[in-house]
Amino acid sequence: MSLLVTGSIGIDDVKTPYGEVKNVYGGSAVYFSFAAKLFAPVRFVGVVGEDFPAEFRAYLERAEIDLAGLEVRKGSKTFRWSGQYAGENADAETLDIDLNVLAEAGPKIPPQFANTECVFLAATHPALQEDLIAQLKSPKFIMADTRDLWINNEREGLMRTFKKVHGAIMNDFEARLLTGETNLVLAGKKILDLGPEMVVIKKGEHGAMLVTQKDVAALPAYPTTEVKDPTGAGDSFAGGMMGYLATQPDFGMKTLKQALARGMVTASFTIEDFSLRRIEKVTSQDVEGRLAQYKAILAID
Amino acid sequence: MSLLVTGSIGIDDVKTPYGEVKNVYGGSAVYFSFAAKLFAPVRFVGVVGEDFPAEFRAYLERAEIDLAGLEVRKGSKTFRWSGQYAGENADAETLDIDLNVLAEAGPKIPPQFANTECVFLAATHPALQEDLIAQLKSPKFIMADTRDLWINNEREGLMRTFKKVHGAIMNDFEARLLTGETNLVLAGKKILDLGPEMVVIKKGEHGAMLVTQKDVAALPAYPTTEVKDPTGAGDSFAGGMMGYLATQPDFGMKTLKQALARGMVTASFTIEDFSLRRIEKVTSQDVEGRLAQYKAILAID
Repeated sequence: MSLLVTGSIGIDDVKTPYGEVKNVYGGSAVYFSFAAKLFAPVRFVGVVGEDFPAEFRAYLERAEIDLAGLEVRKGSKTFRWSGQYAGENADAETLDIDLNVLAEAGPKIPPQFANTECVFLAATHPALQEDLIAQLKSPKFIMADTRDLWINNEREGLMRTFKKVHGAIMNDFEARLLTGETNLVLAGKKILDLGPEMVVIKKGEHGAMLVTQKDVAALPAYPTTEVKDPTGAGDSFAGGMMGYLATQPDFGMKTLKQALARGMVTASFTIEDFSLRRIEKVTSQDVEGRLAQYKAILAID
Repeated sequence: MSLLVTGSIGIDDVKTPYGEVKNVYGGSAVYFSFAAKLFAPVRFVGVVGEDFPAEFRAYLERAEIDLAGLEVRKGSKTFRWSGQYAGENADAETLDIDLNVLAEAGPKIPPQFANTECVFLAATHPALQEDLIAQLKSPKFIMADTRDLWINNEREGLMRTFKKVHGAIMNDFEARLLTGETNLVLAGKKILDLGPEMVVIKKGEHGAMLVTQKDVAALPAYPTTEVKDPTGAGDSFAGGMMGYLATQPDFGMKTLKQALARGMVTASFTIEDFSLRRIEKVTSQDVEGRLAQYKAILAID
């Protein structure tokens, strides 16, 4: 199936206990794309300002990401984020954020992408997510990410979005905030009541949980010891998962778990270096190799 | 192999968002015993005061726990703990603690228990753990639990204990505190440098990690939705794990992971009701049933 991502694309400054980088490539849709392209071709929808560096575009083109949906908006500036992490498992602390073009109208899905079947909506304003969904002609599987900001401030809009998607993804803090439920299985069930057929709850270093009406799965993170920069872990996880799903004929529990495992492995590469420095070098063979290790770690028979 | 536990035994008051109980049976060695006895006979070593209720002894005897090592000390009082939990995943908050007999000399291992091969030392003063180890004639596998109190205040003694045990078990907070290492795999490796051949790092609702010199395993918790009282979860986990190990001819990685899985399942029963109310009713068939579910949840092929 065809696969499309829409989300942020921008320039980051990042500081962690392991180092510091400035003016590096970032954004949720970019991390997603580099993970997903290990499994399936990626259609990219996003918006940048006229200051968008030519090298950044060339970089994405070399990665064979289809940029037909990348709008360069005249008179606008590209999204910038500056953040730091107190430790490898700490939440990002935003030091500075210039939403710039992300605070304006959202991107449009170009006609040649309108028939995409697998769609990932990275976390953004629910109204924008709804608008993007409306531009899709025949979606088979739409997954939406969200975050505390929208849960707190745009709950009604988020409820409308959730009625129109097949999957939801968020972290454990957000799932608890959204549902008021401490137990993550019960939180997942409550999210299903909002519309999605499946929900993935990300737990950082502890892995993720998958909840459907009939089943629950819990998978640990791949136990890497080389964490340099957690930025993009969640979007890489979603990218690995959705990239794999786009290659599959059905989305039964078995397939969903296989997809989660691939997301976990893909994300484990991303965090081993700053920005996209590690994930950009990863090959399908690398993924298969680490996946075999991951399965061996999990096997208890 | 024969299996022995030594640790606390006492009377608890516990309050959680799901209810409140007073004067219930508790203690690390008691939770351990009820979990371990589902797999192997348990030899109990502990000390109580002369106020120890006859019904509590009868209760343990009915459970077929071998009480030859239970000392009733004249002039002393039984350990009491009162605690509460803000939520199902919250740490226990101690409201009141009367160490009583636990603040005095430790228990002695009776002659008929001195040849025990598998031994679990629940968290207590490292000097007491060392003293107990010295009473064992031919231990094959000693596992020691510890906690922040001893890591902070008795580090030297703990280092001596760790040189004499085969396995160490503690929670993620404690592993980080002990090693100064955020990454749990690296924390585990540093703990191995202190002496043990294997270390189990408990992560509460997120499961546990097992680290040996050659291997790492990460297992999620069994995703129960019926959490009423987290008291005893860690000791039940250790009990299920050690109870299973006592039935095995070798302690290779495969066996250790099987043991962890059984610990996870056993602990998932304990937390479904207050005190020992749930785990006391669990049968081997219940364990096997939930273990099959747990393996299905983990299977990704």
